[in-house]
Amino acid sequence: MIKTAVLGATGYAGIELVRLLSAHPEAEIKILGSKSFAGQKISDVYQNFNHILEMACEETDIDKVAECDVAFTALPHGASKTVIPQILERGVKVIDLSGDYRYDDAAVYEKWYGEKHSSPELLKESVYGLPELHRDRIKSARLIGNPGCYTTCSILGAAPLLKSGLGSTKNIIVDAKSGVTGAGRGLALQTHFCECTENTKAYKVATHRHTSEIEQELSNISGEKIMLSFTPHLIPQKRGILSTIYINLNKPCTSEEVLDVYKEFYKNEFFVRVKESGFLPETKHVAGSNFVDIGVVVDERLQRAIVVSALDNIVKGAAGQAVQNMNLMFGLDEKTGLKNAGFYL
Amino acid sequence: MIKTAVLGATGYAGIELVRLLSAHPEAEIKILGSKSFAGQKISDVYQNFNHILEMACEETDIDKVAECDVAFTALPHGASKTVIPQILERGVKVIDLSGDYRYDDAAVYEKWYGEKHSSPELLKESVYGLPELHRDRIKSARLIGNPGCYTTCSILGAAPLLKSGLGSTKNIIVDAKSGVTGAGRGLALQTHFCECTENTKAYKVATHRHTSEIEQELSNISGEKIMLSFTPHLIPQKRGILSTIYINLNKPCTSEEVLDVYKEFYKNEFFVRVKESGFLPETKHVAGSNFVDIGVVVDERLQRAIVVSALDNIVKGAAGQAVQNMNLMFGLDEKTGLKNAGFYL
Amino acid sequence: MIKTAVLGATGYAGIELVRLLSAHPEAEIKILGSKSFAGQKISDVYQNFNHILEMACEETDIDKVAECDVAFTALPHGASKTVIPQILERGVKVIDLSGDYRYDDAAVYEKWYGEKHSSPELLKESVYGLPELHRDRIKSARLIGNPGCYTTCSILGAAPLLKSGLGSTKNIIVDAKSGVTGAGRGLALQTHFCECTENTKAYKVATHRHTSEIEQELSNISGEKIMLSFTPHLIPQKRGILSTIYINLNKPCTSEEVLDVYKEFYKNEFFVRVKESGFLPETKHVAGSNFVDIGVVVDERLQRAIVVSALDNIVKGAAGQAVQNMNLMFGLDEKTGLKNAGFYL
Amino acid sequence: MIKTAVLGATGYAGIELVRLLSAHPEAEIKILGSKSFAGQKISDVYQNFNHILEMACEETDIDKVAECDVAFTALPHGASKTVIPQILERGVKVIDLSGDYRYDDAAVYEKWYGEKHSSPELLKESVYGLPELHRDRIKSARLIGNPGCYTTCSILGAAPLLKSGLGSTKNIIVDAKSGVTGAGRGLALQTHFCECTENTKAYKVATHRHTSEIEQELSNISGEKIMLSFTPHLIPQKRGILSTIYINLNKPCTSEEVLDVYKEFYKNEFFVRVKESGFLPETKHVAGSNFVDIGVVVDERLQRAIVVSALDNIVKGAAGQAVQNMNLMFGLDEKTGLKNAGFYL
Repeated sequence: MIKTAVLGATGYAGIELVRLLSAHPEAEIKILGSKSFAGQKISDVYQNFNHILEMACEETDIDKVAECDVAFTALPHGASKTVIPQILERGVKVIDLSGDYRYDDAAVYEKWYGEKHSSPELLKESVYGLPELHRDRIKSARLIGNPGCYTTCSILGAAPLLKSGLGSTKNIIVDAKSGVTGAGRGLALQTHFCECTENTKAYKVATHRHTSEIEQELSNISGEKIMLSFTPHLIPQKRGILSTIYINLNKPCTSEEVLDVYKEFYKNEFFVRVKESGFLPETKHVAGSNFVDIGVVVDERLQRAIVVSALDNIVKGAAGQAVQNMNLMFGLDEKTGLKNAGFYL
Repeated sequence: MIKTAVLGATGYAGIELVRLLSAHPEAEIKILGSKSFAGQKISDVYQNFNHILEMACEETDIDKVAECDVAFTALPHGASKTVIPQILERGVKVIDLSGDYRYDDAAVYEKWYGEKHSSPELLKESVYGLPELHRDRIKSARLIGNPGCYTTCSILGAAPLLKSGLGSTKNIIVDAKSGVTGAGRGLALQTHFCECTENTKAYKVATHRHTSEIEQELSNISGEKIMLSFTPHLIPQKRGILSTIYINLNKPCTSEEVLDVYKEFYKNEFFVRVKESGFLPETKHVAGSNFVDIGVVVDERLQRAIVVSALDNIVKGAAGQAVQNMNLMFGLDEKTGLKNAGFYL
Repeated sequence: MIKTAVLGATGYAGIELVRLLSAHPEAEIKILGSKSFAGQKISDVYQNFNHILEMACEETDIDKVAECDVAFTALPHGASKTVIPQILERGVKVIDLSGDYRYDDAAVYEKWYGEKHSSPELLKESVYGLPELHRDRIKSARLIGNPGCYTTCSILGAAPLLKSGLGSTKNIIVDAKSGVTGAGRGLALQTHFCECTENTKAYKVATHRHTSEIEQELSNISGEKIMLSFTPHLIPQKRGILSTIYINLNKPCTSEEVLDVYKEFYKNEFFVRVKESGFLPETKHVAGSNFVDIGVVVDERLQRAIVVSALDNIVKGAAGQAVQNMNLMFGLDEKTGLKNAGFYL
Repeated sequence: MIKTAVLGATGYAGIELVRLLSAHPEAEIKILGSKSFAGQKISDVYQNFNHILEMACEETDIDKVAECDVAFTALPHGASKTVIPQILERGVKVIDLSGDYRYDDAAVYEKWYGEKHSSPELLKESVYGLPELHRDRIKSARLIGNPGCYTTCSILGAAPLLKSGLGSTKNIIVDAKSGVTGAGRGLALQTHFCECTENTKAYKVATHRHTSEIEQELSNISGEKIMLSFTPHLIPQKRGILSTIYINLNKPCTSEEVLDVYKEFYKNEFFVRVKESGFLPETKHVAGSNFVDIGVVVDERLQRAIVVSALDNIVKGAAGQAVQNMNLMFGLDEKTGLKNAGFYL
């Protein structure tokens, strides 16, 4: 059994990790780290865990973490900075759900986050934890920068067209819609029920940090420096991201031809489901599961592909992907503990 | 592996059965019966099943069902009538999710359903599939009348007070609130999104069929003929029933004393979680799981207990309970395939 | 034109007052009081008011309030204490939306609110602002205790049966379901979108303060001291309260006979709509309007009436009722500014 | 008083017309046309109208319609074909909410609707009822093609940039998100509450009919033939459309410079609210009102404007705009009956 610590266990990404790990056949939770709820049973904080997992939450104690095989860090921005280097020093692998270790280049981080990177030397060895693109490096990594939710959805949606050269690198638009769990459990007026039910809005237009992650990975794939529009929206549902991606085509082709490129690209990927022509993803098809669904329609009038990709932001966009990375890092079948259909209803 | 047939697989109770059985370690689905979608893959009808279960749906063929160990019948009222006796004749056990086999007395059925019972002789051997009350009889049954969703929630909420004699059998009120999955997948104006979001209403006041089931079981438990008010409400959410049950107390006592009665009554029940004093159930604590949560507050001014019970109507109120019954009928640990925490988010 | 001040204009009751008053043909808003948003335009805080009302919010200045005809106080509990006596002294009428001036007897207030009443002498002259019961006294009042939302819904639902003597004063149960605007705009985990969507729960069981208001008014109507169960629930919608009220009948009668009692009782009331037999209220029928809808089903098996009443908690349960009171206090037709159908969608 | 007929009064656009007209100070409803509910009171079909409007619905009788000044036709596609020419012949003005009379060129209609236009001769005189662009022609029209909901939102969002020449006519993307009222009241699986709550999806990608309307109007404005991507999405809320529009800029400029172009363009328009820099529209700011809100962010990295526009699809996107057109056609202030702030909550 893999001994795991979940640090930041009571946020939404953290508690989804707890849900997945508590049902994982090859992992066990040894530590539930939570500053706010230290001393309380997780099953009092999230009462769905009664009779399932009734461990107490605790403040982070590096000596205790040192007895684990892997630590998942789902900490508030800033808190992970000092903790992660300490954990790594003690020989424990880290899968970090923050943005800190997702960058090839500290300068990009610093530009989009507006602050100095605290441990740029770790960026050299950290691996961007998107298994569909970096599986081999993940297997031997000791520090994973687990990708953002918008990012996973957008990169996997665009990658095949850019890798194949069929898609133009100019004029790419990613218009993304996210459920409210993406905003976290912290209190804010914008996540008050009465403010966000029956409401849709765009936010952080042209400035959202995930833009830089998407650009980094798509540039790597295409071999060209890509800059694109990424527009996040908040929609009145809990789970799910739907990205609508507009990519001009370098030559005329049909929806079926583009779908063939996607099917080939993802032919060995269990967690990516390329839809047949005429079908499109919906967030309810992926909610509660680790799948990314991708559909394509080519607008032949405009020689443009409209790619629609969907995932559950706290599963494939956070906790599920982290477990998938853990599986790879410890030599398990990457599907272990993640083979469920989602709940649909 | 237990070979199972799910007849009526594409309704909401049916597809939840498919979700649970497809992840069950000791059962396999051999038949997905669906009149409306015969010939289509279940993963086209419910696209969350892509890469998980891609079997085709089919019309019911008794010869094929005869090769299974158990059939779950989640058929429209009326359709099950002719099918179930035929299945039983072929030696296959049946867990029926309709109301047809839940009654001790055909006359009660006929009064509340307004029609003759088609096979009253089967009522003698059918067992009311509420494991917390009838576990032993379920183990040896070949025909289970799987309880209704409102019913399970209400009976388990009231049983300890009535069994103990602490609760009065007079003036019992069950005020129940249900999510919209309870209304099924059939098209109706009242389940149109724009009609039922931002809306709460009572319906079938004083006439809902589940009243008779609740009265039957509580009368059996208390040893007195009980008649009570049961009022169902439709609330704008998918999953979940919350029953608020008002029972006058035969002597003064505190919340803690009543909770002790509940804890004792359910001390061996994994799927019933009695809350500590000061905590109350919420539907999100049980959504996606097979748990029933029960809390109690005694209003000492009025010498009355207010019991709040909650479950997921399509899990413990339908599909999960059916799987729990199957587990018992086939000698498995009744928790098999049902030990998850629910999804909370 | 009636000159009005809205103190506490940026809470949910306050902003609904602003919405109603800004469209009222005989009133004008002179002051928008808001501690948190002083200096900001109301149309920046609630951007639906752009092009409609672009006044700035300000901190309460008693000298300015003194130039108004009436002040609506929708202040946090405690804040109104010192302000209201000062306003009254300056000859300005007050319609207070807090619980402070709703009681005949300071002792009842003190028992349920757990603190001394700050100005018990004002309770003698303050009038409980439920026009359907106290219209004449409201007309000449200078201080109105505007009823609570649960309260209005419950009192108007039960009053005719208790006034007529047809309903028993024993074993009355009020099971009420409220939308989330009732919890106000303040930040709290329980009103976070992800916590309250897809969720239903009971809260403050047997201890909610509105119990005492309901008991006071129903006791006055019936001439007997009434104690009853009142159970509030939080349901995942913005607006609306639905109360399901159980009252035993002192003699056998039909739904139609009870409905006749209601129709007679409310025959001159524009804002109370008694449903025909076979119809029941739904919160969407009243959302956005000042109506209370009431339906009745008699369970003849049990000799019990189940009364269902519905209103919009921030209109008839707060701001609309306050405007109705203002209309009465200033000699206007009480329907002025309130004659709309609600929005349904 | 303008005598009006609402034909198709019980659909969602129809009932919103009824809501607006029943409160309109200069109009009265003479006919409520409804095939499905003929003979029933509108207040039984939509019970929010009790005590407000209790007229019976009726089947369309051209002789009765002939006594009105104007008929609003909100009929199912096809039904309006025969009725509208007859009404016009009788000297009654028509405001048609279908797509039939929105086109300059029957060929465009026929391409996107896949059928022959039934009365192409009427297209010559019908006026596209978008007051912000065609006010003068609307004033003297006898037949209005009232614009679609997506269309109004998208055209008004893009018009200033294209009119000014600052925006490129190439690579325009309109990514639109709509609430479920846009799908109408007819029963369909996709509008079942359990299917569309907690779900977001794209639909009719590259093929939605409104594309052709948007292209027609923007081509007229810019003087160039424009073809663009329009992608509609269904989001889990009742009211509201948010369009995110991507337009490349022909020269570098700032958000403020682009906003100045918008403010100038709409300086005399009451119903268009251009946001200040740093503010963006949300659907809840416009819900229930006739406003269109527009915000702009320029991504200077990409020399691209991201325009966000929002409206209520059944008000400014249907019924409200129809009333605005009626006001213009009958010489009233166009704001009559439409000056409310929306409901926000």
